[in-house]
Amino acid sequence: MSPLSSSLLNPRLSFSLKPLFLFSQSSFAPRKFQIPRQFVSAKRKTFSALASEQSSATNNCGRSGGGGRSGAISPSSVVEEVQRIDVNPPKGTRDFPPEDMRLRTWLFNHFREVSRLFGFEEVDYPVLESEALFIRKAGEEIRDQLYCFEDRGNRRVALRPELTPSLARLVIQKGKSLSLPLKWFAIGQCWRYERMTRGRRREHYQWNMDILGLPEVTAEAELISSIVAFFKRIGITESDVGFKVSSRKVLQEVLRCYSVPENLFGKVCIIIDKIEKIPIDEIKRELNATGLSEEAIEELLQVLSIKSLTKLEEILGGAGEAVADLKELFSLAEKFGYSEWIQFDASVVRGLAYYTGIVFEGFDRQGKLRAICGGGRYDRLLSTFGGDDVPACGFGFGDAVIVELLKEKGLLPELNLEVDNIVCALDYDLQGVAAEVATKLREKGQSVDLVLESKPLKWVFKRAARTNAQRLVLVGNTEWQKGMVGVKILSSGEQYEIKLDELE
Amino acid sequence: MSPLSSSLLNPRLSFSLKPLFLFSQSSFAPRKFQIPRQFVSAKRKTFSALASEQSSATNNCGRSGGGGRSGAISPSSVVEEVQRIDVNPPKGTRDFPPEDMRLRTWLFNHFREVSRLFGFEEVDYPVLESEALFIRKAGEEIRDQLYCFEDRGNRRVALRPELTPSLARLVIQKGKSLSLPLKWFAIGQCWRYERMTRGRRREHYQWNMDILGLPEVTAEAELISSIVAFFKRIGITESDVGFKVSSRKVLQEVLRCYSVPENLFGKVCIIIDKIEKIPIDEIKRELNATGLSEEAIEELLQVLSIKSLTKLEEILGGAGEAVADLKELFSLAEKFGYSEWIQFDASVVRGLAYYTGIVFEGFDRQGKLRAICGGGRYDRLLSTFGGDDVPACGFGFGDAVIVELLKEKGLLPELNLEVDNIVCALDYDLQGVAAEVATKLREKGQSVDLVLESKPLKWVFKRAARTNAQRLVLVGNTEWQKGMVGVKILSSGEQYEIKLDELE
Repeated sequence: MSPLSSSLLNPRLSFSLKPLFLFSQSSFAPRKFQIPRQFVSAKRKTFSALASEQSSATNNCGRSGGGGRSGAISPSSVVEEVQRIDVNPPKGTRDFPPEDMRLRTWLFNHFREVSRLFGFEEVDYPVLESEALFIRKAGEEIRDQLYCFEDRGNRRVALRPELTPSLARLVIQKGKSLSLPLKWFAIGQCWRYERMTRGRRREHYQWNMDILGLPEVTAEAELISSIVAFFKRIGITESDVGFKVSSRKVLQEVLRCYSVPENLFGKVCIIIDKIEKIPIDEIKRELNATGLSEEAIEELLQVLSIKSLTKLEEILGGAGEAVADLKELFSLAEKFGYSEWIQFDASVVRGLAYYTGIVFEGFDRQGKLRAICGGGRYDRLLSTFGGDDVPACGFGFGDAVIVELLKEKGLLPELNLEVDNIVCALDYDLQGVAAEVATKLREKGQSVDLVLESKPLKWVFKRAARTNAQRLVLVGNTEWQKGMVGVKILSSGEQYEIKLDELE
Repeated sequence: MSPLSSSLLNPRLSFSLKPLFLFSQSSFAPRKFQIPRQFVSAKRKTFSALASEQSSATNNCGRSGGGGRSGAISPSSVVEEVQRIDVNPPKGTRDFPPEDMRLRTWLFNHFREVSRLFGFEEVDYPVLESEALFIRKAGEEIRDQLYCFEDRGNRRVALRPELTPSLARLVIQKGKSLSLPLKWFAIGQCWRYERMTRGRRREHYQWNMDILGLPEVTAEAELISSIVAFFKRIGITESDVGFKVSSRKVLQEVLRCYSVPENLFGKVCIIIDKIEKIPIDEIKRELNATGLSEEAIEELLQVLSIKSLTKLEEILGGAGEAVADLKELFSLAEKFGYSEWIQFDASVVRGLAYYTGIVFEGFDRQGKLRAICGGGRYDRLLSTFGGDDVPACGFGFGDAVIVELLKEKGLLPELNLEVDNIVCALDYDLQGVAAEVATKLREKGQSVDLVLESKPLKWVFKRAARTNAQRLVLVGNTEWQKGMVGVKILSSGEQYEIKLDELE
C-alpha cells in the first residue's frame, strides 16, 4: 500500500474538465477536516423562494457563471481522503486490457470450437467452492496451495484450484437424470497460492474436457484427438509438441507384486510425480517413509524409466490391463491420425491423486516449457465424495504455457480491434443526426464507432486508423439537407455521397 | 457437512464396471485401518523373475483371470475415508449444467454482439482484488457485503463486488498510453455476501460498458442506446421496460442551497437510494444524523418526488447543469430513437457513492422485478484512488433479473444441444474406422458425436434424438470394404451410402 498523500502533495490534473468551483467555500478545504454535527442547520432559501427568484439567482444557489458543458466539480474537491492505491492487480493475478483480452478470446474461441466439433457441451461451476471438495490426503501440491478462507457464515471455502472435483460434485447431484456418456467441457478460472516464480501465476484459466460413463480407452483416445485438433488449428505441429502417455495401472501392477496396500497408491503416485523436481534421494526417502521396501523402490524406479511399450510388455507381461490399455490407445491413435504425436513414457504419473488408469501430458519437444496440458482416467473419484462411481476421464489445458509456446514458435496471432464504420458529425449540432446514422447502421449489423464529441477531421482519421475502421461516414450540413451522408472507404480512399436509407 | 458414512452403510453401485477384485486381500478390509510402517518389507518377486514366469503367473502378481476391459479396482476399494460431500454448490452460488450454460452463453453472446456493434473493446480484471479498492466511506450497502478475507501472505483481498473500481485502477495504471475516449466493456462475475432472499444470490455476472474521456452527455446517450439495442435483440420492448433517468447534480444543487458540504454528498445519495427499501422516518433520521436540517430534508424529499423535467426546471431554473444535461439527454434520445423508453424521475440516485452526474436505471414496467440495470456518470472516481480524473460513465447489467424478465414475458429462448453428425461403428472392431470418419468430418468443420462404445442401434437413435443430430453416419463392414459409409438424414429419413472422401 502506498502511503497517504495529502491533497497538496498529490497534483491531480483533470484531463479535459475545466474546473468550475461550485463549492467555492469548501473546495480548497483540507481533505480530512471534521464536519461538526448540525453545522448545516441554518437554511438559506426554501425551494419555493428559489424558484420565484430564478432569473436573478446571484446567491450561493445560482450558477456562478460560465455555464456550458464543462462545469463538473473541481478535481480538488474530491471528498474522501485519498489513498494512492496500488494500480497493479494483486500479486499473481492479471488484468486483461483490450490487447490481452483479444488473445484470451481468440484462445477460448478455439477451445470452444474444438469442443463443439467433438460434440461436447459447455458447463461451469462456482469459482468459490467448499474447501472440503479439494482436501485429499495424498499429499498433493495442489492442497498445500489452496486459496482457502472462512466466509462470513464461518464456512470453509476455497477458490477452486481445478475443475474436476466440481464436475464430480455436479454429476453426483444430477445422478440418474444424466444420460451417459457425458461429454462436457468447461473453461474456468482456477487459483493456486503458489510461490511466485518466472511465468507462474496464482490464477489461470483452464480448458477441461471430460467424458463420463465410458470404461473404454476410446474415451482417452477421443480426448487426445481433441487436443491434437486444437494444436493443429493454431499452427502447432507434432514436431513442436508431443504427448507422453502411461497408465497408473503400471505402478499398480508393480506395487501389487510387493503387496503394497492400495490405500498407499495415491500417495506413492504423488511422490513419484515429483521425480523431476526434487533429488532422487529425497524421493526414495519419501517412498520409504510410506512403508515401501528399498527393493520395491528400486524396482519401481526401474520400471518408471521404461520408454517402450514392448519393453514394458516384457516386464509386466501381456495379460495385464496396463499393457492392454496402452496398446489399444496406440492402435486407436493411428486410426485417429495422431500416432506421430504420442509416445509411451512410464515416468508420467501426473500430480493428482485421483487418476486410476491412462495418464498423459502434452509437452514442448524443445524442453523449454512446463507441461502444456495433462489428463487421465479417474474412475474412482465420485466414490471418494460418497457418490456412485462412474468411469471417467478428462484433461486440463491451461491458458499460460500455450501462450508461451506460441510466442516461442512465432505463432501468436495479430489481433486488432476492427470496426466497420466510424461515424462523425461535422458540427456538434449534427450530433443527433450522427446518432441516427449510427443506430441505422447498427440495426443492419454494422459495428459503429460513433464520435461523441466535436473533433477536427485529423483526429477522426487518426482514430479511424487506430480502430481499423473500414469506412468513414461523415454527417455534414449540406449533404444532410439532401438526406445524404458522405462516405469514404478508408482502404481505397474512394469517396461518395449516399442517401442514408441506401447505406448498407 | 454430512456425517461420515461407513463403507457398509453407503452402498456405492458401480455404473457399468464389473468389479474385479485385484486387491483381494485388502478390498474388504475396514476403510480406516492403520498400515504398520515397513509392513511391506518382504519382497515377493523381483521383476526379472516375474518376467520369466509370465505365462504361468498364478501368484499375487498374476492376473486373477477374467481379463477383458472391465477390470478396474472395485468401488469398495477406495482408499480414503469417504465423507459424503454436500453435492450442492456453496450457498448463493450456481452450477451451470449444460442447459443453464446454454442460456448463459446465449445471453453473453448478445452482450458481446451489442458491445461490438457499438465499437467497444472487451476487457477483464481479476475476480480477486485488494480490499482497499472497494472500501469507500459513504455507507454503501456494497461495502457491508464485501466477500473479503486475508490471503496466505496476510494481504486483505476481496472477491470483486463490481467492476468499475478495477476499471479505474487499470486506467490509472495505463495512464497516458490510452487513447481517449475509451470504450470498454466487460462481462465479469461479481460477489456480494448478501442475506439470501428469493432470487438474490451471492454471485452474478455483470455486463459493463464504460466510456472514459468524454464529459459530454452524448456518452450517456450512447450507453442507454446500447442497452436499448440489447433489449430489442432479445424481444423486450418499451412496453416491457423503461429507463428512469435523473442526475446527481439535481441533489447537488439542492444541497448547495443549504450549504451542505460536498463531502457529505455521497453519503446523502446513499441514504436517499434506500427510500424504497426502508421507512421514510428512518431515511429522515439518517439524513438528519449526517447534519442536514429538517427543512433541508423536507425540501430534498420534495424535489425527489418530481417526475417531470419541466417541473424540475421550474424549481431549479434553466441555467443549472442538472437541467441542461437532462434536457440534452432527452433530445439525444429522440435522435437515437429511444424516447419511448426513457422518463425523468428525480428519485433515481443509484446506490454507489461515486456517481456525479446523470444516473439511470432500467426497470420492469410491471413493477414485479428489481432494477434490471443501472449506471451513470462518475467523473471523480479516479482521483479517489490518487489518479488524475477522467470524465467517465458506464453501466452494470446483471444476468439474473433479465432472465426473470424473459421468463415473465415468455421470451426465454429454447436452446438445445445440436450436433451435425452422430458417427457409430456397427462392430467394436470398426471403432478405429469410426474414429477416422469422425476426424475427417471434424477437419471439414462438422461437429461429431462419436459413439465410443458398442451399443445397439436403438440406443444410437435415442442418443441422436437427444443431441439433435442432423445426420447418422454408420460404419459397417460390408460398406467399409468398398470404402463407403452409410448415411441417414435424421429429419427426412433419407438413407444412402457414400464414399468417405465424398462425405461433406
